[in-house]
Amino acid sequence: MAEVGIILGSDSDLPKIKDCFDILNQFAVEFEVIVSSAHRSPKQTVDWVENVSKRGIKVIIAAAGGAAHLPGVVAAHTILPVIGVPVETAIAGGLDSILSIVQMPSGIPVAAMAAGKSGGANAALFAINILALSNPALTEKMIDYRKKTEAKISDKNKEIKETGLMNYINKLENKI
Amino acid sequence: MAEVGIILGSDSDLPKIKDCFDILNQFAVEFEVIVSSAHRSPKQTVDWVENVSKRGIKVIIAAAGGAAHLPGVVAAHTILPVIGVPVETAIAGGLDSILSIVQMPSGIPVAAMAAGKSGGANAALFAINILALSNPALTEKMIDYRKKTEAKISDKNKEIKETGLMNYINKLENKI
Amino acid sequence: MAEVGIILGSDSDLPKIKDCFDILNQFAVEFEVIVSSAHRSPKQTVDWVENVSKRGIKVIIAAAGGAAHLPGVVAAHTILPVIGVPVETAIAGGLDSILSIVQMPSGIPVAAMAAGKSGGANAALFAINILALSNPALTEKMIDYRKKTEAKISDKNKEIKETGLMNYINKLENKI
Amino acid sequence: MAEVGIILGSDSDLPKIKDCFDILNQFAVEFEVIVSSAHRSPKQTVDWVENVSKRGIKVIIAAAGGAAHLPGVVAAHTILPVIGVPVETAIAGGLDSILSIVQMPSGIPVAAMAAGKSGGANAALFAINILALSNPALTEKMIDYRKKTEAKISDKNKEIKETGLMNYINKLENKI
Amino acid sequence: MAEVGIILGSDSDLPKIKDCFDILNQFAVEFEVIVSSAHRSPKQTVDWVENVSKRGIKVIIAAAGGAAHLPGVVAAHTILPVIGVPVETAIAGGLDSILSIVQMPSGIPVAAMAAGKSGGANAALFAINILALSNPALTEKMIDYRKKTEAKISDKNKEIKETGLMNYINKLENKI
Amino acid sequence: MAEVGIILGSDSDLPKIKDCFDILNQFAVEFEVIVSSAHRSPKQTVDWVENVSKRGIKVIIAAAGGAAHLPGVVAAHTILPVIGVPVETAIAGGLDSILSIVQMPSGIPVAAMAAGKSGGANAALFAINILALSNPALTEKMIDYRKKTEAKISDKNKEIKETGLMNYINKLENKI
Amino acid sequence: MAEVGIILGSDSDLPKIKDCFDILNQFAVEFEVIVSSAHRSPKQTVDWVENVSKRGIKVIIAAAGGAAHLPGVVAAHTILPVIGVPVETAIAGGLDSILSIVQMPSGIPVAAMAAGKSGGANAALFAINILALSNPALTEKMIDYRKKTEAKISDKNKEIKETGLMNYINKLENKI
Amino acid sequence: MAEVGIILGSDSDLPKIKDCFDILNQFAVEFEVIVSSAHRSPKQTVDWVENVSKRGIKVIIAAAGGAAHLPGVVAAHTILPVIGVPVETAIAGGLDSILSIVQMPSGIPVAAMAAGKSGGANAALFAINILALSNPALTEKMIDYRKKTEAKISDKNKEIKETGLMNYINKLENKI
Repeated sequence: MAEVGIILGSDSDLPKIKDCFDILNQFAVEFEVIVSSAHRSPKQTVDWVENVSKRGIKVIIAAAGGAAHLPGVVAAHTILPVIGVPVETAIAGGLDSILSIVQMPSGIPVAAMAAGKSGGANAALFAINILALSNPALTEKMIDYRKKTEAKISDKNKEIKETGLMNYINKLENKI
Repeated sequence: MAEVGIILGSDSDLPKIKDCFDILNQFAVEFEVIVSSAHRSPKQTVDWVENVSKRGIKVIIAAAGGAAHLPGVVAAHTILPVIGVPVETAIAGGLDSILSIVQMPSGIPVAAMAAGKSGGANAALFAINILALSNPALTEKMIDYRKKTEAKISDKNKEIKETGLMNYINKLENKI
Repeated sequence: MAEVGIILGSDSDLPKIKDCFDILNQFAVEFEVIVSSAHRSPKQTVDWVENVSKRGIKVIIAAAGGAAHLPGVVAAHTILPVIGVPVETAIAGGLDSILSIVQMPSGIPVAAMAAGKSGGANAALFAINILALSNPALTEKMIDYRKKTEAKISDKNKEIKETGLMNYINKLENKI
Repeated sequence: MAEVGIILGSDSDLPKIKDCFDILNQFAVEFEVIVSSAHRSPKQTVDWVENVSKRGIKVIIAAAGGAAHLPGVVAAHTILPVIGVPVETAIAGGLDSILSIVQMPSGIPVAAMAAGKSGGANAALFAINILALSNPALTEKMIDYRKKTEAKISDKNKEIKETGLMNYINKLENKI
Repeated sequence: MAEVGIILGSDSDLPKIKDCFDILNQFAVEFEVIVSSAHRSPKQTVDWVENVSKRGIKVIIAAAGGAAHLPGVVAAHTILPVIGVPVETAIAGGLDSILSIVQMPSGIPVAAMAAGKSGGANAALFAINILALSNPALTEKMIDYRKKTEAKISDKNKEIKETGLMNYINKLENKI
Repeated sequence: MAEVGIILGSDSDLPKIKDCFDILNQFAVEFEVIVSSAHRSPKQTVDWVENVSKRGIKVIIAAAGGAAHLPGVVAAHTILPVIGVPVETAIAGGLDSILSIVQMPSGIPVAAMAAGKSGGANAALFAINILALSNPALTEKMIDYRKKTEAKISDKNKEIKETGLMNYINKLENKI
Repeated sequence: MAEVGIILGSDSDLPKIKDCFDILNQFAVEFEVIVSSAHRSPKQTVDWVENVSKRGIKVIIAAAGGAAHLPGVVAAHTILPVIGVPVETAIAGGLDSILSIVQMPSGIPVAAMAAGKSGGANAALFAINILALSNPALTEKMIDYRKKTEAKISDKNKEIKETGLMNYINKLENKI
Repeated sequence: MAEVGIILGSDSDLPKIKDCFDILNQFAVEFEVIVSSAHRSPKQTVDWVENVSKRGIKVIIAAAGGAAHLPGVVAAHTILPVIGVPVETAIAGGLDSILSIVQMPSGIPVAAMAAGKSGGANAALFAINILALSNPALTEKMIDYRKKTEAKISDKNKEIKETGLMNYINKLENKI
């Protein structure tokens, strides 16, 4: 049964938060996804939000760009924790999305993540941190995830030493 | 019968768009005012918007600050022209409000006015410009208003010449 | 007979607001287009504005970039509603264009749309919202347009379910 | 037993998030408060974070200004949900604090709230939304809080009608 | 006979560029002043610009705030050098005024000065630098002005040494 | 004999202000060019500035990017009019260059042009506007240049009408 | 004998970096102070920089606001470490000063501190960190300073516990 | 023995500060490099910092992007001079990285370099400037480096003269 509900303002935002889906899958946290705009399909958006908790959803992730009203509109109709992901735009690299999500007025909170690729990943991780509060198995997995993240960095340092700094840099540059 | 509907995210925004009310009164354009938040009272907001045209309202003015979703949320529920007024905040003097209002996605337009005092006045004037399209009396009044605005500037130039530049400046500085 | 007049500061801005022309055509709203700069051809600009209402134009759309004075200059010479479209530039992705258009002083309103692709589309839709006030056929078309926009989102959700989320994302990524 | 741990970079930030304490008290959610800088008292900060879950703390609120590293540093040492509150500064009204908190790299999420007064209030409300997931009494209280917030807006609209718009505005202006 | 023409978008801008008048007086450069808006009195603005050179004006200073179109509009109607002074506003401390003046399109140049108090002073000094090209007396005065400016700094350093650093700072702080 | 001296902080800035050279050539205004950094070759920079007027140079154009100190440093050593061209950078599309050039302190003015391609062209045109004050032939040429600029816009409008709007747009898009 | 040389663009900047003087005094590090502008007294500035190392100065602190060229100009004439302090201005709270100092081109480094009050203090502390590399007594003092800073925070936490949170906040608010 | 310790938040930042390694090699200054995140590997980061001075490291360079906490976190655990390099991001071209590094609170200084390519180079040069204070050979090399940098500019001016300005520009453009 899905515990995380993900809503996006446009289907073109789907690839931008792919890391979100990957991480939830990796933690075996079930989720449902809907594309629905705060502006172009407001009734569908509200319908979805108002019924989501009945299906067992505990955390909502809402991603949008520009005048990114979706997370705020969603949060206005639920008391579930809502995580907002600003989709990067051309206006100052998403400053419009960031400010539209982070500057919520007193009363209706939204948890803003970073604009750009890391926002999607962190939305998933933050949702899992919340779910882990009442799910010891998820706590274990997250502790393990953190250890592996840390271990990967150690591995990279070893590889840099073995390869030699300049060789390692050249290798990275060739990849791009 | 009211032709302009004005909605504000908070009653504390009322004094900030006082010029809006003054100008509508000056042109004898009737209006109704409601305080309703996109986030704290979403149902009241949508109810108001969906019924407004039945009462003869033709243009909507929506003012809000911070993550200023109100104009966009209102526009999502009506095809009446919606004018958005960004209420000035401390974040870059309202850059959050401006971007949250102006950067609307394709499909649901909002007409953004300036942040700060002139935004309220211009929202009223823009609403009147729209109403004037089918109201010759308003057209006359607006032409007259523009002439008077221009005449006031001529009067000031006369006053500067008569008073002397430095005396005029001193007088202005003492006023503040 | 044209009801919308469109003025652009440079012919290089024409492709950037192509959606504007497409939408007006889609709604069968006639329009005329002129390229004229506030700075390089000021007399032609003012001539055009001052004569536009005589030809039956009811709404003006003005698009410009950088120190985007065109919408303001146009608005100074007419009491028709003027819609400003900030053309995206490299300075903070059009922050110069946005602020030059949105921050109009009290007295002469301009309705600012978004910078970027959605600005052109929304300028057309906002013009139609204004014209619809005295044109029931346009009202019908706009209600229909909104319904179709909403239906397209439902279709996408169906497609996502049928295709599978990851397949859908891959398909989108391959398109780019 | 405290369920929310609040850490601030400086005691001068305490009055700026007063609404946070007020709301937690209002919901009878116990909290503990510590002043500890990410930079000036790093060991105390890490010690506190690493021991906080042992005392039953489930959610952490971290407030800081300028190069606001505190929420990120706290999040690096715990898998509890960390809510970051950017304390408003003079640099673009807190744009430095906002970006330092919201732009967290992939792997370690922080939930950013608004800069300014509403950030503190929303941090408390968001923490309660999380706690409510496993506490039906809190869920009831939050639903009630939302209803009261909405009711207050209705009351204000009644008061505006009874007092008259201009009298209401004058009353507000005299209060300031 | 006036050699510098000064145009301001509003009489409220007069005190903000007082240093401009002071410096022109100090150099005995005659000037004329007009208040005229690019938007509210466009015809008066263009009339003034088009006739200014006939009266012997050689350099124009144009000051405006917000969507500061005045310098650009003036420059569109003359080939005299136009100096633009962005009047400081609340939007990012005048970022709107700066970008509206500095980002002029290719073809019609405007010389942008600083926002804030120094902009007015520097507009006068830059105008004098231009006039000095064909006026050796002004050249002498400007060389002298620069020397005195430099000498004042030496005097301050002497005073700091004699007074003692901390006493000097206390004295400055008491002045404010 | 050169009347305009052009100094650039780096030879990599040369292509970015190519329009500057083109326009000066077009007006047959002679110029000299030097690459010299305010920071990496400060003595050469000052030497050049201090001797430039002896060779008959009347106006200086200084182009630089990032912490663009060059125009200010040049202006500190001459009373000739100094025109600053902010070279576009990746930091907010040149906001660093713009602010470093435009925000000069009281006493030493620099005339800031736009960041981006139009800055170079306008620097040349502004220099010519200054030189034209004592050169009637240049005045004639500039009036002619303005007329031709205006005529080109008329030609484009004719072409749009003849080609058809959509064909014209397609043609433009294919060029890119 | 002075080991730190401090140069300020204006004597009005002296109170703004008072903490710089206080900290150097506290560590008994001798310093000399000069007011000298990069623009208004360029020769004095260069003279001072070029002779400073002969008098035993090892580190330079340069403070300036707006188009803050002083630290860069100083760094161009010395290979001593130069620390730049952006003095806060009204343009985005010093964003102009920050970018003018931090965005130095490759070849001539400047160490930028924070805009606002902490910049002055940190410039002194950073200078001491440099001097401490060859001065074990300073190393001891700095370790001690850090410990005391940390201890002060512990004291505040004790005081908060003893006074009670709300009493402590009230006390702070009354101070302001 | 390494005198400079370089820490990066991610191995993907290595190519971005390649100039840093090149310059240190060019001056024969030994350095060690570690990849370690303030957030993903906080313990490794602190371990490294706390032991670095025992191995003879005298200056630390810390590079990070986004919410760039690494330089501040490093500085919190050492009194060695810490140089921060903001890695350029898409959010306003690294404004998030710049503000996260430069706006350090009073007590723990970090020396911020430029975002972009020059930041890495200048971090190395600034580190050498510090080391040169107690190493006359490095002083000689740096004086020599500055002379060569200056000479290169003279060479370019010669080449421009010999090649002809337009040929030189064409050559540069073909390179890109």
